[in-house]
Amino acid sequence: MTSFSSIHFESSGRKSTAASRPEVIEKLQAAVGFDNVLVEPDKVEPYGADAVKEKFPPEAVVFPSNTAEMVTVLKIANEHVFPVTARGGGVGYTGGAVPVDGGIVIGTDRMNRIIEINADDLYAICEPGVTTYALQQAAAEIGLLFAPDPASYKDSFIGGNIAENAGGMRTPKYGVTKHHVLGLEVVTATGDVIRTGGKTVKNVVGFDLTGLMCGSEGMLGIITEATLKLMPMPEATSTVRASFRSMKAACEVLTKFTPHGLLPMAMEVIDKFCVAAVEENFAFGLSKDAEALLLVAVDGSSEQVASDAKMIEQLIADNGGFEILRSRSKEEEDKLWDVRRAISPSLMKYGTLKINEDVVVPRSKVPELVAEIEEIGRRHDTFVANFGHAGDGNIHVNFVVDRDDADAVARARRCVSETFRLAVQLGGTISGEHGIGYVKAPYMSYAIDAPTLEIMKGIKQVFDPKGILNPGKMFV
Amino acid sequence: MTSFSSIHFESSGRKSTAASRPEVIEKLQAAVGFDNVLVEPDKVEPYGADAVKEKFPPEAVVFPSNTAEMVTVLKIANEHVFPVTARGGGVGYTGGAVPVDGGIVIGTDRMNRIIEINADDLYAICEPGVTTYALQQAAAEIGLLFAPDPASYKDSFIGGNIAENAGGMRTPKYGVTKHHVLGLEVVTATGDVIRTGGKTVKNVVGFDLTGLMCGSEGMLGIITEATLKLMPMPEATSTVRASFRSMKAACEVLTKFTPHGLLPMAMEVIDKFCVAAVEENFAFGLSKDAEALLLVAVDGSSEQVASDAKMIEQLIADNGGFEILRSRSKEEEDKLWDVRRAISPSLMKYGTLKINEDVVVPRSKVPELVAEIEEIGRRHDTFVANFGHAGDGNIHVNFVVDRDDADAVARARRCVSETFRLAVQLGGTISGEHGIGYVKAPYMSYAIDAPTLEIMKGIKQVFDPKGILNPGKMFV
Repeated sequence: MTSFSSIHFESSGRKSTAASRPEVIEKLQAAVGFDNVLVEPDKVEPYGADAVKEKFPPEAVVFPSNTAEMVTVLKIANEHVFPVTARGGGVGYTGGAVPVDGGIVIGTDRMNRIIEINADDLYAICEPGVTTYALQQAAAEIGLLFAPDPASYKDSFIGGNIAENAGGMRTPKYGVTKHHVLGLEVVTATGDVIRTGGKTVKNVVGFDLTGLMCGSEGMLGIITEATLKLMPMPEATSTVRASFRSMKAACEVLTKFTPHGLLPMAMEVIDKFCVAAVEENFAFGLSKDAEALLLVAVDGSSEQVASDAKMIEQLIADNGGFEILRSRSKEEEDKLWDVRRAISPSLMKYGTLKINEDVVVPRSKVPELVAEIEEIGRRHDTFVANFGHAGDGNIHVNFVVDRDDADAVARARRCVSETFRLAVQLGGTISGEHGIGYVKAPYMSYAIDAPTLEIMKGIKQVFDPKGILNPGKMFV
Repeated sequence: MTSFSSIHFESSGRKSTAASRPEVIEKLQAAVGFDNVLVEPDKVEPYGADAVKEKFPPEAVVFPSNTAEMVTVLKIANEHVFPVTARGGGVGYTGGAVPVDGGIVIGTDRMNRIIEINADDLYAICEPGVTTYALQQAAAEIGLLFAPDPASYKDSFIGGNIAENAGGMRTPKYGVTKHHVLGLEVVTATGDVIRTGGKTVKNVVGFDLTGLMCGSEGMLGIITEATLKLMPMPEATSTVRASFRSMKAACEVLTKFTPHGLLPMAMEVIDKFCVAAVEENFAFGLSKDAEALLLVAVDGSSEQVASDAKMIEQLIADNGGFEILRSRSKEEEDKLWDVRRAISPSLMKYGTLKINEDVVVPRSKVPELVAEIEEIGRRHDTFVANFGHAGDGNIHVNFVVDRDDADAVARARRCVSETFRLAVQLGGTISGEHGIGYVKAPYMSYAIDAPTLEIMKGIKQVFDPKGILNPGKMFV
């Protein structure tokens, strides 16, 4: 495997590889059209960063319009041996789409067709550059639901969602992206086209390469077409919001739903620091006594939703909840969620660098996780606020510091490292939905033991013998 | 990769490999205890066949009781290079657990502990030798559902269900086995222990080896522990049964449920030949005009189930269904399903060999699939009857002949081969839930193209460089 580099935390300027050679650029232009290859520094720069906001400008950005062009581009990269990083919406939190070792970025923006939505057979076929939102809208128009809902759904591409195995809020009921991918067309590093899975949920013909591609972070191949599972759109949704006097009480109430057969689609929790931050900035009028805020959403038929929401309201009241609000209309529901949406902008007031991690633990461990993380923050004099997906134990840990204060940034990094160890100690892992990329690559060994890591590296070698696909990610 | 053999359709007697050597047997006895190694021909014979009923007796059967013993056994096999075939309940339909190239069978019967059922965090941890039924029962006792339900659930082991990615009836709502596996402990061919996934639904740390192990048919490693997803047990279920004047009408009604937000957990169809067979043998009193019988089951809260079942009854009545029965109690529901359970014994009256295939197509193609299969049967003068999972397009095609009539068996094999091609032509594939094993290995190329197959073989090589795990399966 060609080794381009290893570990990155800071922008290291524009790298130079074989991709910069004039004859390579000419070949790429011939493959996808002159206008679909960007090389000027100001044009490529936006393709050198994601939500992490560290800059690694590529040498060129190439926009194929179909599978055949993708094959040609990969064959060129394979021949001249330079890094290829696929990019979707570019909104990732771990640098998965960022060309840390230079080479080219492949933008899938032009491959944005929804090819088929089949209501009878409950699937959609689309290209990787379709946004999750666009697919959800197209499906909703004919009464169907594409269930995965990463927070970035308006900007993130289906290809990126699959490559990162994106999560979201609806996981407790609907699972994550991989649970909704039926089949894929993938171009491998050698420019071969492989077809995994198919149009049916049941398919046990050979190894499950579809599952393997989900979450493979562009390191095994580039997705050129996806067949996705659709479901009947539930008739209604409703949300209950409540305050609690402790994080423990807020999380424990979730276990009271199960004996009643209740499986809410979303169960979100917000800690006291987030509550204080949104109050300071948006004045929702939340109680000063709220140590935690819980949002629980259910979906289904109108009657069932009304009945489930009432039962949840009652269970919350019986188990320490107060200031309980239950939505009776879409508008009321939207309003209840405003608090959740206000968190990120509110936290930015505490510093210019918000390190947003996404550890996951068995959900009963969330109170312990949050308490220990607060202790970690205190120990390293770093502001921390936690919120996230209590129903599946996936908590967003936000360490907020001043980007220009090197010592504060270093302290925050220590907080991150200790948080990762803590999550693993509590029976969880270092990423629930953001992936590894280059940002978490140094911590892989916290969660994955050596023999398992060796198998992963072996698989990488099978798909990408020269190591050209997204180098500098996952393994360091 | 050591090549043991390639293709099998008939028993070829007991093979002899290094596993038979006295010093190897002694090492195996030292590893797991003298009593836990079977070598006598009459003792090993039952471990040489599955539901296919072709006999390939192993040289020895070894029963490890824990992971450490499994590691030792695999290290012995790796050192002396002989085939190792893991076996669960031994009820598969494609020979996945059958040692076609000799060597040892590893029985997981002694590894049958349910280690933990966690109601707060909605997971179970168990060893591979637990039956699906035992796990379902243990979960149900505390109000939880383990959703996968292969027909063999009373006998099949969790390890086998995972290795085959077993399906069942509840797929339309709950998906297949792989959707309910959170994490695995696996011993690879080299005797390394790897740990995939974890206890949480969200986990995006490295490649998804958990998904890859599901459906890998014992060719990549042997599962020694599984962490499985549990759900709240739905309060109630109800079933609607109806006759239709055509297979097309029976299948089309399924598409009428979607606009009402209905997602039944099971939608089963039975063709006219099955109806005739069960009538002849059990006299349920089904109409002679029934060209197809449909069973639709819903689950949820009592109120929702009653309302959903009524709506389904109405939609069936509006769309050509007749003789419609709707269950109002568990007993009534059980009775409605008696017809489905009567099929297999009834079909056995038509011959001594029932070749039960499990092709899958997008569900709207089921009527065309069934019609064409009837034509195939006519063309080759072979009795065929179809039933299965209409809701997910997975149809059980039964060609029934006399086992001792070589010409009839050959004709049936031609029917099978044409049925596989047909399923692929209709946008489906050659196996929805039975897997490939040795039985379908010759047909892999119908469904999987050469570059994709090469990737699969490369992955096999990574996990099992000497090719000792379950040789003679999947690839020929």
